[in-house]
Amino acid sequence: MKLASLKKGRDGQLVVVSRDLSRYAVAEGIAETMQAALDDWSAVKPRLEQLAAKLERGEADTRRFDAAEMASPLPRAFQWADGSAYINHVELVRKARGAEVPESFYADPLMYQGGSDHFLAPTDPIPLGDDAWGLDLEGEIAVVTGDVDRGASEEKAAREIRLIMLVNDVSLRGLIPGELAKGFGFFQSKPPSAFSPVAVTPDELGDAWDGAKLSGALKIDLNGEPFGRADAGQEMTFGFDKLVAHAAKTRALRAGTIIGSGTVSNKLDGGPGKPVSEGGAGYSCIAEQRMIETIKGGKPSTSFLRDGDRVKIWMEDGEGHSIFGAIDQVVQKD
Amino acid sequence: MKLASLKKGRDGQLVVVSRDLSRYAVAEGIAETMQAALDDWSAVKPRLEQLAAKLERGEADTRRFDAAEMASPLPRAFQWADGSAYINHVELVRKARGAEVPESFYADPLMYQGGSDHFLAPTDPIPLGDDAWGLDLEGEIAVVTGDVDRGASEEKAAREIRLIMLVNDVSLRGLIPGELAKGFGFFQSKPPSAFSPVAVTPDELGDAWDGAKLSGALKIDLNGEPFGRADAGQEMTFGFDKLVAHAAKTRALRAGTIIGSGTVSNKLDGGPGKPVSEGGAGYSCIAEQRMIETIKGGKPSTSFLRDGDRVKIWMEDGEGHSIFGAIDQVVQKD
Repeated sequence: MKLASLKKGRDGQLVVVSRDLSRYAVAEGIAETMQAALDDWSAVKPRLEQLAAKLERGEADTRRFDAAEMASPLPRAFQWADGSAYINHVELVRKARGAEVPESFYADPLMYQGGSDHFLAPTDPIPLGDDAWGLDLEGEIAVVTGDVDRGASEEKAAREIRLIMLVNDVSLRGLIPGELAKGFGFFQSKPPSAFSPVAVTPDELGDAWDGAKLSGALKIDLNGEPFGRADAGQEMTFGFDKLVAHAAKTRALRAGTIIGSGTVSNKLDGGPGKPVSEGGAGYSCIAEQRMIETIKGGKPSTSFLRDGDRVKIWMEDGEGHSIFGAIDQVVQKD
Repeated sequence: MKLASLKKGRDGQLVVVSRDLSRYAVAEGIAETMQAALDDWSAVKPRLEQLAAKLERGEADTRRFDAAEMASPLPRAFQWADGSAYINHVELVRKARGAEVPESFYADPLMYQGGSDHFLAPTDPIPLGDDAWGLDLEGEIAVVTGDVDRGASEEKAAREIRLIMLVNDVSLRGLIPGELAKGFGFFQSKPPSAFSPVAVTPDELGDAWDGAKLSGALKIDLNGEPFGRADAGQEMTFGFDKLVAHAAKTRALRAGTIIGSGTVSNKLDGGPGKPVSEGGAGYSCIAEQRMIETIKGGKPSTSFLRDGDRVKIWMEDGEGHSIFGAIDQVVQKD
């Protein structure tokens, strides 16, 4: 089943989207909002599935699907926590500044609490206040959970994954070092993220979803050129089962919690990747490309995002059809 | 005006509470929940004020107010960000481990993004999974904002403060050093907090609220004995105007954002405080008492919270009446 939130008020209006992303039906009389559906999932899900089946049979009252009319699936959420599950990304960050990755990082996931009071819509501009902030994209996979008990096992955590979607975790690289040095984690350096227009249930993904990881290239274009083609199923050190269980270690997670994978990142022949233009899988954030430039040439040559830059993030199924619709954003300087 | 949320579902039911905390009236037909009221504050506030006036005149349909029937004013929130505005607290933390406070800490507030998918009710037990987690209370003041623009000035930020309340920011001290060492801030070390049964509008506080700081002793009893009597209006290095503006520097804040003050902490004669039993203002967290024990005697002698320990946090007006009702929680080990 594919779900989305039509732009409306602060929480959007829940709609069911056809598998081919051509049409949608408003979930009227079933659940007003995505959060309302997640709050009462076991009762609501079967009714949404009935509507989805009618939609596929052409029996529902539908409208043409246009990603530009969609908010992020949860336009605001009660929790957004982002892991850093692709340790290759962490290794590159550290290598670029000549530091080692602590052994514990391979056993204990990194995760930060993100802001969730509002998210950008998938085709909203990304506002930029100051070029010195170092605006970057981060292409990631995210899951939405139901209620997860405190201390839930990885198996139990995996069973509470309700939806999967993509995310552009917008980051202000210029503010990160100062903020992390203060010791309290990210805050000003993480303005609102944008999610894919559509969130899908695990069964919708077939073999690409193994219960904890999503396989397939996370496609990222920057100004119309291929920038990232990293496979989300490769070198993911911690699956979502582990990430959700980590988040729930000392506290229950309530329905509608979004957990992110961190920047998708692949090695190449055991070493750092190469740009897509050189036959590599490319990158899922500019910082990573800059790190590789630094490792190779002593300093970065690619600049962070500037006014007018365009970021597109999507993923295709085995037949080349978009699964989640595309995050497609243009940077807009104040 | 005093507002509270009757326990009901995930978001509670909004009620207006009498000034003396003796009665309440359900805000039926005005706003179902606290979040709904905050989402549409300019339209909803006058109607709530009418109900409050009727309540004070004895003309409303009321029930007896019992804090045990109340959830936290926002039982779950879209944002909870906690500052560390009482630098005395930070100075003590650092002094206990022989470190200096960076000069920038006096100009640039510390703030972390907290989890907000659910809060404990003010009289809920505080669950404790493991004594080694080092369960601690933190007595703080918190404000709830309306929509705050990105880049809002301190003056504008102050004008967007809708409500003021108290908070017990539950912390797991045993997990903090390891988590902060990873560099991504608090996560597992910050399980759900509890807020006072009642949140009040700024006008309700009279001269005790100067637009950015709340004066008066934050009263904390531990197992029935006075533990903290620190004045929230003293030595607050950053007022809420500065804290809210800091939070809004690179991103707008949406209605219902909760911003915390961090642990209230007073100096005594320019030095660290003394226990209430020795004539001091005491402490608003156990860690601070342990730091002072460490500074004085080389090691802490007070233990963190254990099964059955009781924490009470409240504040009184000039006539000795409770303003917000009391957070009154007992630790419950698994």
